[in-house]
Amino acid sequence: MKQPSLHWRIVLVRPRNPLNIGAAARAMANFGFRELVVVRPYDPIWQETRSAVGAEEIVQTARATDTLLEGIGDATLIIGTTSGSRRTLDRELIPLQELPDWLRTRARKHRRAALLFGSEKHGLTNEDLSRCHGIVRIPTAAETPSMNLGQAVAVCCYELARARPVATGPPASRVFLSDPANLQSLEHVLERAASVLDAVGYLKPKSRAATLVKLRRLLLDLGLTNNDVKILGGVLAQIEWKLQIEPSEHRVGKTAS
Amino acid sequence: MKQPSLHWRIVLVRPRNPLNIGAAARAMANFGFRELVVVRPYDPIWQETRSAVGAEEIVQTARATDTLLEGIGDATLIIGTTSGSRRTLDRELIPLQELPDWLRTRARKHRRAALLFGSEKHGLTNEDLSRCHGIVRIPTAAETPSMNLGQAVAVCCYELARARPVATGPPASRVFLSDPANLQSLEHVLERAASVLDAVGYLKPKSRAATLVKLRRLLLDLGLTNNDVKILGGVLAQIEWKLQIEPSEHRVGKTAS
Repeated sequence: MKQPSLHWRIVLVRPRNPLNIGAAARAMANFGFRELVVVRPYDPIWQETRSAVGAEEIVQTARATDTLLEGIGDATLIIGTTSGSRRTLDRELIPLQELPDWLRTRARKHRRAALLFGSEKHGLTNEDLSRCHGIVRIPTAAETPSMNLGQAVAVCCYELARARPVATGPPASRVFLSDPANLQSLEHVLERAASVLDAVGYLKPKSRAATLVKLRRLLLDLGLTNNDVKILGGVLAQIEWKLQIEPSEHRVGKTAS
Repeated sequence: MKQPSLHWRIVLVRPRNPLNIGAAARAMANFGFRELVVVRPYDPIWQETRSAVGAEEIVQTARATDTLLEGIGDATLIIGTTSGSRRTLDRELIPLQELPDWLRTRARKHRRAALLFGSEKHGLTNEDLSRCHGIVRIPTAAETPSMNLGQAVAVCCYELARARPVATGPPASRVFLSDPANLQSLEHVLERAASVLDAVGYLKPKSRAATLVKLRRLLLDLGLTNNDVKILGGVLAQIEWKLQIEPSEHRVGKTAS
C-alpha cells in the first residue's frame, strides 16, 4: 500500500502587498501546490488581484484567517521560513537545500504540513516561529538577505517539489498509528500548563513570555501524538482540580486567542 | 592551488516589463550573483526602475546590448532556460535539479558562463537556444508551466548557488590548458563554414536555417578549444581560397549580426 504524500499548505502571515499574494499563488501553481492561506492580510482586496497568471483558482479558493492558528488548521508539521542569517530563538536553522533530508526522517508520520512566510518587511515574528517544528533558512547572501515574498515562495516550492518523492515510503498503517498531535490540541495543553505554572508561581512576570515560548518549543520537539496529549490533559486536569483552577482562566498570551 | 570558481552572467533576452528586470536583479543579489546583461529590452528606461531592493548596483551596472552574441560576451559555457514541457529542437533538456551534476562533469574547463532567460511571453526562441551548450528545464507543472521571469531567475540562481562548491576542484593549470573556444570565434567559424557550404551547394534554400542550427549545435557539442578553432579556421581559409569566396560574404543569417 502506498502512503499518501505529504500535503502542503502555504501560509502567508500578514502580507502587505496584494501583488505578492498573487505572485506567491503563481509560484505555487508552477510547482503543483494548491492550498493557500492568508493570515490577516494588510489589504483585504487581494482576491481581486489579477497578477496570479494561471493561478486564479488558488487565489479564489484561498482562505483568509484572523489568527495564525486558524491558518495552520489541521496541519501537524509546521515549518517556518527565514532568509539571511537572522538568529531566531537560538534554534537551529535548516538550510533550505537540506529540507528534503530533514523531511525524510520526520515527515513520514505526518499527512498535512504548513509552510509559513512572514510579512515582506519583518518576516515571521519570534512568536510565529515558536509554533514551528522547524525553521528553514533560505540561503541568501549576507549583503542582500531579504527576499521578495513571491520569489521566496517560488524557491521554497521548487525545493519542496524536488523533495516530493521523499514523502512516499512506509506502509499506510504506520501513518495512522503514529497519529501526531495537531497544533490546536498542543496549544490547549500549553494554555492549561501555563495556568498551572502561573498558579504554582513558576512563571515570573518578566520572563513569562520567553519561558512559554521555550515550553512550546519543547512540546513541539517531543513529537507528541494525540494520545500523548490526551494523557497530558488528564494529568493537567488532576492538577487543576487540586489547585482549584477554573478552565476559563487558561490563557497563554495575546496571540493564543 | 584552488581553481577560480565559475563566474555566471545572467542574460535577460528581450524582457518586456522593466519591473521584471529589477526583480531578476534582486533575486541575483540574494544568491550572490552580480553580473546582469539585458538584450534588447522592450522598455529602455528599465535602469530607472526602483524595484530592485538591495540590488540597485546590479541594475545600474548592467550592460544593455543589441544582440544576444554581445550579451553572451566572453562566456564559454552557455545555458538556456525553459519551463514546462516545451520540446525544443529535439534536444535533451537538463532538469534544473540535475544542473549541479551536469556542471560537475562539464564546467571545470570553463571560467565564465552565461545563463539565458527569454521574454515573459515567448521565452527563448529556437534560434537563441541553438547557441546553448545545454538547456535547463525548470520543472514546472504541466497545467501551469509558465513562470514569472523574476521567479524563474530566483529559482535558477538558488539552484546554481547550491551547486557552487562544484566549481572548485582540479588545479588551475588545467583550466588554462583546456582553453574553451568562445562563442564569437565559434560563430565566426560557423559563418565561414556556411558560406563554404553555400558555395558548394550543400545548403538548400528551404532547409538552410534549420541545417545551420544543427551545425551550430554540433560545433558546440564538440567542446572545441580556441586552438581547435584556429585549426578549423585554417582549413576553411584554404577552402575559401580554392572556391574564391570573399571574406565579406560570410553571413549565417539575420541574428548573427
